[in-house]
Amino acid sequence: MAAQRKVRSDKYTELVNAGLGRDLAKRLGLPQPAVLRRWTPGAPLVQGPILVVGHSDGADAVATALLSWGQDVRRHATPKEKVGAVVLVLDELAHPDQLSGPLLEVGAALRDLNRNGRVVSISRQPGAGDAPETAAARNAVDGIMRSLAKELRAGATANGVLLGGGTAVNAPSALSALRFFLSARSAFVDGQFLTASSDGSPATPDWDRPLDARVAVVTGAARGIGAAIARTLARDGAKVIAVDVPAAGDRLAAVANEIHGTALQLDITATEAGARILDHAAQRHGRLDIVVHNAGITRDRLLANMDPARWDSVIAVNIGAQLRMNQAFLASSHFADHPRIISVSSTSGIAGNRGQTNYAASKAGVIGMVRSTAPLLAERGGTVNAVAPGFIETAMTAKIPFATREVARRLNSLQQGGQPEDVAEAIAYFASEASAGVTANILRVCGQNLVGQ
Amino acid sequence: MAAQRKVRSDKYTELVNAGLGRDLAKRLGLPQPAVLRRWTPGAPLVQGPILVVGHSDGADAVATALLSWGQDVRRHATPKEKVGAVVLVLDELAHPDQLSGPLLEVGAALRDLNRNGRVVSISRQPGAGDAPETAAARNAVDGIMRSLAKELRAGATANGVLLGGGTAVNAPSALSALRFFLSARSAFVDGQFLTASSDGSPATPDWDRPLDARVAVVTGAARGIGAAIARTLARDGAKVIAVDVPAAGDRLAAVANEIHGTALQLDITATEAGARILDHAAQRHGRLDIVVHNAGITRDRLLANMDPARWDSVIAVNIGAQLRMNQAFLASSHFADHPRIISVSSTSGIAGNRGQTNYAASKAGVIGMVRSTAPLLAERGGTVNAVAPGFIETAMTAKIPFATREVARRLNSLQQGGQPEDVAEAIAYFASEASAGVTANILRVCGQNLVGQ
Repeated sequence: MAAQRKVRSDKYTELVNAGLGRDLAKRLGLPQPAVLRRWTPGAPLVQGPILVVGHSDGADAVATALLSWGQDVRRHATPKEKVGAVVLVLDELAHPDQLSGPLLEVGAALRDLNRNGRVVSISRQPGAGDAPETAAARNAVDGIMRSLAKELRAGATANGVLLGGGTAVNAPSALSALRFFLSARSAFVDGQFLTASSDGSPATPDWDRPLDARVAVVTGAARGIGAAIARTLARDGAKVIAVDVPAAGDRLAAVANEIHGTALQLDITATEAGARILDHAAQRHGRLDIVVHNAGITRDRLLANMDPARWDSVIAVNIGAQLRMNQAFLASSHFADHPRIISVSSTSGIAGNRGQTNYAASKAGVIGMVRSTAPLLAERGGTVNAVAPGFIETAMTAKIPFATREVARRLNSLQQGGQPEDVAEAIAYFASEASAGVTANILRVCGQNLVGQ
Repeated sequence: MAAQRKVRSDKYTELVNAGLGRDLAKRLGLPQPAVLRRWTPGAPLVQGPILVVGHSDGADAVATALLSWGQDVRRHATPKEKVGAVVLVLDELAHPDQLSGPLLEVGAALRDLNRNGRVVSISRQPGAGDAPETAAARNAVDGIMRSLAKELRAGATANGVLLGGGTAVNAPSALSALRFFLSARSAFVDGQFLTASSDGSPATPDWDRPLDARVAVVTGAARGIGAAIARTLARDGAKVIAVDVPAAGDRLAAVANEIHGTALQLDITATEAGARILDHAAQRHGRLDIVVHNAGITRDRLLANMDPARWDSVIAVNIGAQLRMNQAFLASSHFADHPRIISVSSTSGIAGNRGQTNYAASKAGVIGMVRSTAPLLAERGGTVNAVAPGFIETAMTAKIPFATREVARRLNSLQQGGQPEDVAEAIAYFASEASAGVTANILRVCGQNLVGQ
């Protein structure tokens, strides 16, 4: 499937990464965002050996898993050898005093981390029954990785896998999260955590076509992030039903044709939207496996100047439609084989945003919906998660005035906007078989954007 | 007790709030941070009538409670009448469609909100058993209030009370949180939520001396935020034991004398630190009621350049000492009468910070500790909470180079740094009798600083 497109980087990033522009930026102390490595099927997982730090049995188990993936693994830093990634295994952490040794070992290895390198921690999620010192140590990892992500340069990222409940350190769900963070699929994910809340499924996926033969629907697929999602799911092997409003019919048909999928013109706020998607999927494929709720609108206005039309339309499209469609999907026998739902939220739904009370309400609403829908999906072996994009380079953000856009896209640890493909890769990760056991996550795809709660 | 000091505002804020400076800032479109109203005993709760928006029985109950506090309450906006606060009661929210009416009513009222006004929501915390549409609606409030906080100007703030479990909308714990947000005590708290996880105690406190006769210990009390905490707890009626290292003995004695408390020179990392505090408290007062873990240090360095001494000392002082002292306190019969523990965390412990992996580890560790210690305090009718200060104007932050400091202090919705007293007021709130039922909260005191997860 030749759906892979040349990844665009913004002009500034191109300028400061070659020739005179690079020299000039260095001399003037200007931001020098790196050109991020993006994933393509068949490319190596990381660029260089992987150093596994940690002395628990869990660290050995992780090293074994990495070897089974054909990776070059080190258990101790080799002087002057560059590494592609550092994996920090802290599964037995019981007191903050135990952080010192492994963290100083990571620190020493950072000088030898390759461009676009990776640091990934694996540790246990703090839980209600933890002793105070254990909970302190476990939560300390959060502060460490978010700080480290702000220190790394040259396209390198720092993220963490959290083992929920009794999840084993080398459970399929934990390893799939580790693999996502190590890979170039997570290029624009930085300073974030994924929780593997149960062990997941032991099936070994085809890592180059993890969605083979799965049937996926993507709303808002005619352009931007939605089109990128459709292309990425198709690249990963899925049969894609591309949904958008009738007014976007031509673009929608073009996307569907390009990826050998089908187009379905639909107003997602219509009462029968869920039923129509199910009918389409059942007739064509006999099933529906993956739902991506991507369609969304903005109608910005300060709350003091808000009107009912702006408020209601944003709520109806961005959250009301998802709630109604999910009800239809969950009532259907065609959506029953370890299904996946992935919603697109937004950093505005987490941090709020001036002029966007309605939009932030809808995107925070998505987060509430995802968390409470997880038990309903678990009943049928499925998962539901959300991605929260930050500043993504799309036709929509291209309309933002230059100066505002320049500031917005530099306000993250990677000092650049993300690509629609970055959001799509995170969604494809949640959609894959390997991510069973990874549910109720809200994953920011934002380059560690400054904005937060 | 004449411990109240003149609140400093930074020079820029003074400049743009009077005469020529004000006109100039307006013309140039420069930030015009408001001079925030701070609390003094006896001052009115809010400046103007309080508009209660919402049509549930809960809204009526909240209005009744406000009347019982002697407030001037409106159930409908009166044309052209200025209001001091808007309270938005959404306790019966069950679907995102129900947000439109009350939020548009709030929006219309914003034009008549006084300077230093308040918008406070009261809604239910999303829970595991919620239906998806209920969870969506409840979590939508989070996005709304955080957005609204970014829209308000002139020192006005927007915050929310979350009712956990079956907490009643007019439970003492919910009303105490509402009162804190309405009052000038919360001047630098913006875009935040407090969870009232149980009803709390029905005792009616003396709102001007809520800590009367309670015995409090404050670590790191010789200066800065710690000294402000000691003064504020004393102003609220507490008998304060001021703790700091021997090297700060003179300053410590001065603070203790000023507030008619006692000084205790102590290295908090010593094994016997907890026992010595308990002995001191038992001998002087026969009891210990309130513990404020404020003492903390920074030893900044990129992780790549970190050394064991820097790492270990920060962990030992900022988290190790708190864990060990809490063990001693919780084992003591002198710390048994609905006790309170309040720890000082940091926005760096939530968002991470470049050069502060060790500090962020310790401050994130504090958050983990607080959450897991809550059940241990609940057993004896107590609570444990943390405050997470953002940029606060202290001798420490005054050393930051001018340009960096100017940027840092404007990067929040109130466009200014907070005062040590603002952190102290939040701690006094958690310490008070009225806050029974408010536990395991991490309250940011940061003016809605941009930095987040």
